[in-house]
Amino acid sequence: MSNSRADILAAARGVLTRHSLADLTMRRLAAEVRVRPNALYWHFPNKQTLLAALADDILASVPGPDPALPWDRQLADLATGIRAALLAVPDSAEVVSSSWASGLSDKAVADVITAVAVAGGLTDRDAQAITTAICQLVIGLTIEEQTRAQMERLGVIGPSGRDFGAEFADGLDVILDGARHRAAAIDA
Amino acid sequence: MSNSRADILAAARGVLTRHSLADLTMRRLAAEVRVRPNALYWHFPNKQTLLAALADDILASVPGPDPALPWDRQLADLATGIRAALLAVPDSAEVVSSSWASGLSDKAVADVITAVAVAGGLTDRDAQAITTAICQLVIGLTIEEQTRAQMERLGVIGPSGRDFGAEFADGLDVILDGARHRAAAIDA
Repeated sequence: MSNSRADILAAARGVLTRHSLADLTMRRLAAEVRVRPNALYWHFPNKQTLLAALADDILASVPGPDPALPWDRQLADLATGIRAALLAVPDSAEVVSSSWASGLSDKAVADVITAVAVAGGLTDRDAQAITTAICQLVIGLTIEEQTRAQMERLGVIGPSGRDFGAEFADGLDVILDGARHRAAAIDA
Repeated sequence: MSNSRADILAAARGVLTRHSLADLTMRRLAAEVRVRPNALYWHFPNKQTLLAALADDILASVPGPDPALPWDRQLADLATGIRAALLAVPDSAEVVSSSWASGLSDKAVADVITAVAVAGGLTDRDAQAITTAICQLVIGLTIEEQTRAQMERLGVIGPSGRDFGAEFADGLDVILDGARHRAAAIDA
């Protein structure tokens, strides 16, 4: 009959994994952790706060970058790490998008991307621009991939035959080319 | 009491504008156009088909690129045009993402981006990569912006203070730098 914050977040992941984001209501979550809805609100005053905590929790598993690697390789590893963290939890890309929209997420992983780009020699504005392009590639494409997976799970459609991993890697390479070009322009 | 395909799509836009994507059910849509649900299914066998037609309809308003302009400028205009078309209809970025996921959209606007990049001298694979990066920047960031707008409309949160237009323009510039770098590498 535990209802700690961590238990609630684990239960929320469980609802996403076994069902979908549409099924993640405060009422259902309370039933999952076997508490009254009011007890949930002690930890999370509303659904937006819950989704933001869930997003930060999911992205907390992204490994920090290896400072021994070149900065552009660190960016690639971060992007790939975010994608892997999202793919581990169905519908999580939409949860992260929503939590970034609400402004209630700490956006820690986005700050790390920006910091790596700045350490690579980019201006704050360029580093921010690269963060936007990388994050939206990961989030946008993963929303599409997880929506597709949901449709296939429900049996409304067959396999897409798309290689989302290759689409992601190729799109990321173009953005990193742009980042390297910016860094070189500043060096010159 | 008309229930042509165009009337149904117009009614679907109306539901998004006055309500939200969550409210866009086949039942509600049938009520809006004043027909029985079965009549809807004559035009759209299921909701995925409807969403794909709606996505293609919304993106049909994106102006074609001006072939007199440089290819990278044409790409910028296309990206900006997609963003403007999406911002005109609440929740439409999620509709487009979902229709691209289902594979039922014609993705015509994505094909135009790829064709402009190829005409600019890029390989098919690079052109595809640039299309992915541009489309997901537009879709991903606009999903976030429209989710935020919905939260503000419902009064659950105040204005974000974010300049999504500037975030978009800066992110797009980085991707176009990457695209120009690819084109220059092929020229060299």
